[in-house]
Amino acid sequence: MPRDLDALLSACSDRLPQLQTQRLMLYAGANLPSARAMAAYNPALSAYPAMGPTGHKEQPDTDLVSELESFTTQAAMTLFNAAWAEVRLASCTLANLAIFHAYCQPGDTVLAPAAEHGGHLSQRRGGTPQLAGLVVEDLPYDRHNCTLDTARAAEMIMRVRPKLVVLGRSIMIKADDIAAVVEAARAVGAKTLFDASHVLGLIAGGMYPNPFDAGVDLISSSTYKTLPGRPQGLVLGRNPDDASALRNLLDTRLLANYDAGRLPSLAVTLTEAQASGREYVARIVSNSAALHRSLLDIGWPVIGANDGEVHTHQLLLPLSLDADQRAVMHALQAQGILIGTCVDPSRAGHQALRLGTQFITRQGMDVQDMTEVARLLGDVLRVGVCGRLLARPVADTAQIAGRIQQILSKKKPLGSG
Amino acid sequence: MPRDLDALLSACSDRLPQLQTQRLMLYAGANLPSARAMAAYNPALSAYPAMGPTGHKEQPDTDLVSELESFTTQAAMTLFNAAWAEVRLASCTLANLAIFHAYCQPGDTVLAPAAEHGGHLSQRRGGTPQLAGLVVEDLPYDRHNCTLDTARAAEMIMRVRPKLVVLGRSIMIKADDIAAVVEAARAVGAKTLFDASHVLGLIAGGMYPNPFDAGVDLISSSTYKTLPGRPQGLVLGRNPDDASALRNLLDTRLLANYDAGRLPSLAVTLTEAQASGREYVARIVSNSAALHRSLLDIGWPVIGANDGEVHTHQLLLPLSLDADQRAVMHALQAQGILIGTCVDPSRAGHQALRLGTQFITRQGMDVQDMTEVARLLGDVLRVGVCGRLLARPVADTAQIAGRIQQILSKKKPLGSG
Repeated sequence: MPRDLDALLSACSDRLPQLQTQRLMLYAGANLPSARAMAAYNPALSAYPAMGPTGHKEQPDTDLVSELESFTTQAAMTLFNAAWAEVRLASCTLANLAIFHAYCQPGDTVLAPAAEHGGHLSQRRGGTPQLAGLVVEDLPYDRHNCTLDTARAAEMIMRVRPKLVVLGRSIMIKADDIAAVVEAARAVGAKTLFDASHVLGLIAGGMYPNPFDAGVDLISSSTYKTLPGRPQGLVLGRNPDDASALRNLLDTRLLANYDAGRLPSLAVTLTEAQASGREYVARIVSNSAALHRSLLDIGWPVIGANDGEVHTHQLLLPLSLDADQRAVMHALQAQGILIGTCVDPSRAGHQALRLGTQFITRQGMDVQDMTEVARLLGDVLRVGVCGRLLARPVADTAQIAGRIQQILSKKKPLGSG
Repeated sequence: MPRDLDALLSACSDRLPQLQTQRLMLYAGANLPSARAMAAYNPALSAYPAMGPTGHKEQPDTDLVSELESFTTQAAMTLFNAAWAEVRLASCTLANLAIFHAYCQPGDTVLAPAAEHGGHLSQRRGGTPQLAGLVVEDLPYDRHNCTLDTARAAEMIMRVRPKLVVLGRSIMIKADDIAAVVEAARAVGAKTLFDASHVLGLIAGGMYPNPFDAGVDLISSSTYKTLPGRPQGLVLGRNPDDASALRNLLDTRLLANYDAGRLPSLAVTLTEAQASGREYVARIVSNSAALHRSLLDIGWPVIGANDGEVHTHQLLLPLSLDADQRAVMHALQAQGILIGTCVDPSRAGHQALRLGTQFITRQGMDVQDMTEVARLLGDVLRVGVCGRLLARPVADTAQIAGRIQQILSKKKPLGSG
């Protein structure tokens, strides 16, 4: 029996405290903006369009929107050391689509990460690039290290001579080495795009190498994973000459109007990342390392950065072939533990759980808490005979829920002040 | 000197009362959601993606998002008598792009309204259809009546045999007669799309013919013009078999994640339109007719529906060739009167002001107020020697501002309760 509007809105109102106090949120692509960023969302700025370039809008009385575009663009440029930024797109999928249209022609070849290595549908063969009529070939991947296979990728670029190379994936447990790939792309006149959706906050806070330092031309990203913002898309550019092709495409074919009510919130998030993002993401990385150690201590087959390497927010837990991945996800969810599933990039045809520490870090957890997080996971999952993981039969749900609430009740969320 | 974040956020906070109490908002593509719809915007639902079909999401703990999708979809279907609805897109431009990709192939021909007749960049030659590789030909237009030229359009469809016919424009002063066009399209196997962005609320409230009644296959729309919602996109369909092509495209190539935090607000807006939308849009139409009469009374060359025809929210004021359209817009803006400019569809190469009554009606104005609105316009514009309009030299700005505030201070906005 469907709920009526009142009941539904009431459930929506309960959702924020639920996420904050009753869930162990280990989904790797989740975050909440600060209280100030949430409050900055402004419906009055959404009342009518502000079409066209900043400062030259088609609509009357849009100076405030232009000023917000300028401020937010400048904040993004400063934070990521970019020559230009585009802050109006609704998602990274649309940012990637815009880039495909702006810098490629139908029939052009792009190299992009394959689905089986964590390539996102907005990057990969069969996904968004097809909308722009592009021919997509899979980038080589190093299954042993769970990174881009840099040497083979560079060789492939020299051989295939693509128009664009898409770097970055949905599964990133440590930094790829991209310098040789960027060099090869430049040698054949290909542009390079780094989709930083997962690691954008880590880049902002200096815990993941800024792709511009390796010479990447373009960065695209969403804004609500390791960067704790509201969902939207971002494009950043290294070369000032590249800006006009993208902006012209947006203003004449793809964007028309957009919801400018989002901009104040993004302005707050970028400003906060500049001021205090380093501390937050350093904690993400140390929490990932601590959780990794705790899970190894209970004898689990964790896929993460090695000793001496810097973690991202992500760890992978390989699932047994006996386990139905969605059933495992739902079994964990029933106990208040939210984790997504993904392909296991280390082993063809296998699946994994993908954990992220960015949300619990934002809730105030630190390395001391990772032992209890590992224990909770140990109570809901077990290692099967194949050395990979399965869901345990449902444990005492109330007891698990109580332990989750107990950890969270002691924490002071970052950005809540 | 750019403002700092605090000053900018403070300006953003002032924006809503400014729009509500200090501006005569006659921009034809503007609205504000009800207080309840504004408050329903929910950042917790934006914390992580909910990818894939309703009820079969990739992410854990997304039942509430699925329930909101179901509720909002059903509300849209009921309100517009549609067989299916798609509520996840961020704008009507993206809705149109999705439709082009879902129902056409690159190289296909579409017929669409020309820019000089009010075709939007998301519909017209040189705009969004080009992203899908479509060949666009302009639909015939009746400059005398400012409507689609139905007979010539039907003849053109039979001759050109397009894959898709796009109806609806950004300039719509009365209803087009589309029955013969839909019949011709059906005869040649073409789909018909009605872009209802401007008149969606009028359709919901029964003051503009529902395009499904004429047999149109698809309706696309934005949600913040005559429908007083927050900005996003909507697709409605007549034939249940058409849903899967669009949804499959969204789930695999175009949408990926979307901001589900918008859905509660849309649910409120659609529910309110069902409950009280008829009264609101009947007032829009009578206000347009009253303002039209008042402007004729002061001797102005207004382009609107004729006696015996039903108005939309729009009226056009043809501008003198001597007038720089942006300068006129800015002169009005300086006096607190917000009106957009457009091509004059009745006369090639000429420009017009496009007025809309939907916002002031929502603020509580009725037919009695239209005399004063016309007087205010008469104090800032004048008829030139060519019989078309020019801006007057700047009048007493404080006096105009005072009169605007006086009208608004006496009104009780609809949906504010």
